[in-house]
Amino acid sequence: MAQCCILGAGNWATAFARVLADAGHRVTIVARRPEVARAITEQHRNPDYLSDIDLGELVTATTDPVAGLAGAEVIVLAVPAQQMRSYLRQLATLPVWRDSQAPVLSLVKGIETGTDMRMSEVIAQAGEVDLARIAVLSGPNLAGEIAERQPSLSVIAAYDPAVGRRLQQVCLTPAFRTYTIDDVVGAEIAGAAKNVIALAVGMGAGLGYGHNALASVITRGLHQLAALGEAMGGQQSTFAGLAGLGDLVATCSSPLSRNRTFGERLGRGLSVQQAVEESAGVAEGVATSLAVRDLARAHGVDMPIVEGVVAVLEGRSTPAAMVPVLMEREPKPES
Amino acid sequence: MAQCCILGAGNWATAFARVLADAGHRVTIVARRPEVARAITEQHRNPDYLSDIDLGELVTATTDPVAGLAGAEVIVLAVPAQQMRSYLRQLATLPVWRDSQAPVLSLVKGIETGTDMRMSEVIAQAGEVDLARIAVLSGPNLAGEIAERQPSLSVIAAYDPAVGRRLQQVCLTPAFRTYTIDDVVGAEIAGAAKNVIALAVGMGAGLGYGHNALASVITRGLHQLAALGEAMGGQQSTFAGLAGLGDLVATCSSPLSRNRTFGERLGRGLSVQQAVEESAGVAEGVATSLAVRDLARAHGVDMPIVEGVVAVLEGRSTPAAMVPVLMEREPKPES
Repeated sequence: MAQCCILGAGNWATAFARVLADAGHRVTIVARRPEVARAITEQHRNPDYLSDIDLGELVTATTDPVAGLAGAEVIVLAVPAQQMRSYLRQLATLPVWRDSQAPVLSLVKGIETGTDMRMSEVIAQAGEVDLARIAVLSGPNLAGEIAERQPSLSVIAAYDPAVGRRLQQVCLTPAFRTYTIDDVVGAEIAGAAKNVIALAVGMGAGLGYGHNALASVITRGLHQLAALGEAMGGQQSTFAGLAGLGDLVATCSSPLSRNRTFGERLGRGLSVQQAVEESAGVAEGVATSLAVRDLARAHGVDMPIVEGVVAVLEGRSTPAAMVPVLMEREPKPES
Repeated sequence: MAQCCILGAGNWATAFARVLADAGHRVTIVARRPEVARAITEQHRNPDYLSDIDLGELVTATTDPVAGLAGAEVIVLAVPAQQMRSYLRQLATLPVWRDSQAPVLSLVKGIETGTDMRMSEVIAQAGEVDLARIAVLSGPNLAGEIAERQPSLSVIAAYDPAVGRRLQQVCLTPAFRTYTIDDVVGAEIAGAAKNVIALAVGMGAGLGYGHNALASVITRGLHQLAALGEAMGGQQSTFAGLAGLGDLVATCSSPLSRNRTFGERLGRGLSVQQAVEESAGVAEGVATSLAVRDLARAHGVDMPIVEGVVAVLEGRSTPAAMVPVLMEREPKPES
């Protein structure tokens, strides 16, 4: 049994708390709001997310990162991607953080806008953490299903294989199991960029396209993701695996995916502003789209689907105008 | 404009006739039943398949292969996989077949049981056709959507690149376009074996599993398909492309897929016999499962999902017992 600290109290953090508790560990969630922390500690439920899930007595919460991190043998990061840097800057001032040698597992999928940095890079830089301690979890992991103990597979990518194996053992339950890989770059690019493809698939669905066209967007989209990942030092096998293909397929097939749903609203003809209002917030893929587009250009990788999504998000194009991107004029070899 | 002959009058044959007609070609369908041929010629509709689709005046039909093949510049094969050999043996007796130098495009996805041969091998052998004339079409191509002119991409795999390019031009329409590849083995293995994975995904859905688990079956299943394809001389890129990933995703996401639906019935607890009765026939993937299992064993490739499907089809196991295949006990690297 290990003492685990989860920084963040959102949907995925809540579901993963249950995984760790199911694996027999004691879990302290560090929440922002006192009423959330109190409810989790007293009722073992998160009132904001997955509120019908009983997290059990092993899961408590606090608003104080010092209390949460004290004695933590495993640290899990689950704060929003675009808030990661400021969150870690604050942590980095705390002795309990600076003195820790615990592995740091990131659940966060996104690229930091402005810097175009991956989450593990932000964690290392802003949190002053040795890369060897950092690992990322990625795969077909819709949080609601994991909270309900539906069988789920995932991938842990670590810089240090020993850290990967340790975390693999820590979060092993009858319903949740992970494979280890050493390709952190690929896992992070796949996890973030797949949300852009999910936006494109959503747009297609909103326009009324069928399974053939959507499957083609998934296939061509993954192909373009993998090209970017490879240009950045990632491995093709990561994109063909659970962190790439698996995550993309689960995201695109779930009606609960925020990114797909957001894209669907754009495809139905809503403006970005209207889609934001109907979605009660911006999907993470919107910020990441711009970062992925920048990365693609910086690495000289051709990503027409991502360029098309960004053009729609920036109001320079419409989902309907993206179809020629898919149905290019000149027939050619599939490369 | 070319004269095209489609041998077979099923669902996919009918949809593809419309593609060829949309591309401006004259199409003769060779049907088995006179009333079907008459209806197509007189009303330009197939009463048995996609009957609400007007195929247009360019599409007519006959029951006589000699009349259908006369002057054909492109020959399309669309008969059931397990009947291909006997059908071609009859054709091979006809001078109009023996004298033809037209390219032969196979729309058929399956492996011949007993011989474990791919369709292009059966065509070459039983039809006495030079392999250089043969190509196969494969991709995310649900027939109903193609008949409705939904945007669809596909792949033509040819032994001779010039034949591939010629066929690519022949079936190019505003809604349907193909890429060319030279990996016939990969395209045929992917097209056939994906039906086995669709059966497994259906079983999972019938058991009530969520998107995470089904996406994992798709990912691991494609991985195992690609391993078989590679052992047989195919290319990884084919499995990552439209003929592999694309076709698998479209098949698994459509409620109209016969293989997925058949698997779903087994997952709900029906016996194979009951599922056959409810489905009004056996899904093609059932015969192909046995052939793929044989091929995997012959090539020394580990395909646990295929082995599991075959065990269920042979009554030696149940869909529920397949879960441990997915959730193996020992955590390990994703290879």
